[in-house]
Amino acid sequence: MRFLHTADWHLGRRLFGYDLYDEQDYAIKQLIQIAKDEAVDAIVVAGDLYDRQNPAEPAVAQLAAIIQKINLELKLPLLMINGNHDSAVRLGVGNQWYQQTNFYLHTQLAQAFEPVEMADVQFFLLPYFELYEARQFFEDDQIKTLEQAMTRIVQQMVTQFKPGKKPVLVAHFFAAGSQHSDSETTVSVGGLDAVPLDLLSPFDYVALGHVHNKEALQQPLIRYSGSLLKFSLSEALQTKGVLIVDTDPEIRVQFKPIKQLHEVQNVQGKFAELTDDAYLTAHHIDRSAYTGIILEDTNVISNASNFLHEKFPRFLTMSRAHGLATFTDQEITAKEIQSPLELLADFYHDATQTDLSKNQKKLAEQALQEADQCDH
Amino acid sequence: MRFLHTADWHLGRRLFGYDLYDEQDYAIKQLIQIAKDEAVDAIVVAGDLYDRQNPAEPAVAQLAAIIQKINLELKLPLLMINGNHDSAVRLGVGNQWYQQTNFYLHTQLAQAFEPVEMADVQFFLLPYFELYEARQFFEDDQIKTLEQAMTRIVQQMVTQFKPGKKPVLVAHFFAAGSQHSDSETTVSVGGLDAVPLDLLSPFDYVALGHVHNKEALQQPLIRYSGSLLKFSLSEALQTKGVLIVDTDPEIRVQFKPIKQLHEVQNVQGKFAELTDDAYLTAHHIDRSAYTGIILEDTNVISNASNFLHEKFPRFLTMSRAHGLATFTDQEITAKEIQSPLELLADFYHDATQTDLSKNQKKLAEQALQEADQCDH
Repeated sequence: MRFLHTADWHLGRRLFGYDLYDEQDYAIKQLIQIAKDEAVDAIVVAGDLYDRQNPAEPAVAQLAAIIQKINLELKLPLLMINGNHDSAVRLGVGNQWYQQTNFYLHTQLAQAFEPVEMADVQFFLLPYFELYEARQFFEDDQIKTLEQAMTRIVQQMVTQFKPGKKPVLVAHFFAAGSQHSDSETTVSVGGLDAVPLDLLSPFDYVALGHVHNKEALQQPLIRYSGSLLKFSLSEALQTKGVLIVDTDPEIRVQFKPIKQLHEVQNVQGKFAELTDDAYLTAHHIDRSAYTGIILEDTNVISNASNFLHEKFPRFLTMSRAHGLATFTDQEITAKEIQSPLELLADFYHDATQTDLSKNQKKLAEQALQEADQCDH
Repeated sequence: MRFLHTADWHLGRRLFGYDLYDEQDYAIKQLIQIAKDEAVDAIVVAGDLYDRQNPAEPAVAQLAAIIQKINLELKLPLLMINGNHDSAVRLGVGNQWYQQTNFYLHTQLAQAFEPVEMADVQFFLLPYFELYEARQFFEDDQIKTLEQAMTRIVQQMVTQFKPGKKPVLVAHFFAAGSQHSDSETTVSVGGLDAVPLDLLSPFDYVALGHVHNKEALQQPLIRYSGSLLKFSLSEALQTKGVLIVDTDPEIRVQFKPIKQLHEVQNVQGKFAELTDDAYLTAHHIDRSAYTGIILEDTNVISNASNFLHEKFPRFLTMSRAHGLATFTDQEITAKEIQSPLELLADFYHDATQTDLSKNQKKLAEQALQEADQCDH
């Protein structure tokens, strides 16, 4: 059979305050088009449908529309698990009804051992789970690590393998050896909560979610599809997309890219250049992209963010390539023993390029004195 | 046919800080037992499944378990609408799948015109809606009142009536002439948003939700089932339950009571009596009930609520039958010109029955002086 492997939709997510509903709609439309063009037999979504346990109403409406489109309109089988960002309870409502149309949404650990058979494949849909759930399920208080839990889980799955069927695991965890990017919520600390790859060897293919960079794990048959969208500036140079997996005669994986409605980019330059329309046009700088600006200037620039926002309507953040003009050690020592009033005067000068007036100084002195008195 | 009419479950609701999950489970179990005993052909729920648009996880899990039990395990048809407390979007997820097992959950106005036929009945499930939705649906900006909207809605429903079928309306609104109780969220102001009863005359039966007291509307065939639980002290003397409606050969409605796991009661007496085990036992006062206490004493009693809570583990609130002992005008004037220190000393005496020590007085004086200085 042929299936589409995706994960980490994170519906409802924001990027520096911008909602991403339109971006996500745009990506999902492409996903559906790819599913049609490639004539896949099923779509597998490996967790983190939502960005939050308690998603906002528009995110709920968006997911409802997507599953309806895929499963009811296009009549495509849908295999789905919850990720660490999803509430198993909230996401799981209705799942017993969904099965009637080959929409398998597994949100409880017990459901991991109800394999879904389709053509030559046996899908094991393992939802994201907490260790206490594994302890409860196996009635074993000695399960203290994800590795121990996964050992038990895979053992139990292997007993259910059917001859002639290719076992495929769908799961949402951090596989040992993967690289994190900063848009994932870290659930592994110091590798303790990573799943060793050799545990996964019984499966013909492992469709993973959680890590947003598809290149983070370099394994041919244990794959992260990656997210559909670039969720942070550090992902600016990644290519996002979905995986098309063929299982017959043997596993074969192809990557299909998905375009961003608006790109995510880092732009470096001088403030004067980046606020100059002619410069931006001449250098083909995409002003519609979600943009992080790295200023090469070292001087204080008043209101820089607002000016940049005017040029880049999806301006995200500003940083400095070389820091701000620094002080010598001597200057810093001198600063450290400034009085509050001197500090205020300096700050005022830095921020406005003018000095405090006599009257302002007098008011500031009074206020500082009063504050000083009430302190004691 | 025969159906059970219920409404206003308000899963997730709290009563003065107590959650009611156990109470609701207890009530729903009885509801299901009644449905079995009475061999009903369907269960109709007229809105306010949840107490909040964004219900807590345990409430979501509770409703999921209930609908699964009724519709999938017992295979009972389920007809449901959202009320003003429910989010149409959140509640509505999955409804297209639910229909496959005769679970009709209507959350969009358009669905009101997709009648559900069952035996001799045509059910019109009208979800709670806002006026702007009616304006959008009918593409008519002139719809300004609920009466206008309902006129249009009923007109359109009547065109769909089938000869030989009895039309039944399921809806969630305030019917003109009903009496409010204080546990409902008022959606009608000055009668403007009430639905006149004559609008409802085309229907053989109207199964309403919203008003929590089944006696609030005295109409034989336009009925509120009322809530399953007593949600406020003002409902202490009401009987809660469900309605069993027979449609053949003609409409016949019976009330079936539902017991509260713990009663809701108002208890009046002297503080000394109500904190005296012997008195409570002799007077058969139910100490397990959710209890509002009305004290007959008029003097200040320190820590009265805590002492009452010890005797009544589900203590809700305390009020005074005769108010607190009042002061003469002269006394009040005298109080009004007390210094802060005198006020503090009086309060301390009232609360502890002892006077401030010399040292306490000195500390209080200092603190008041400091506060006074920083004020200016």
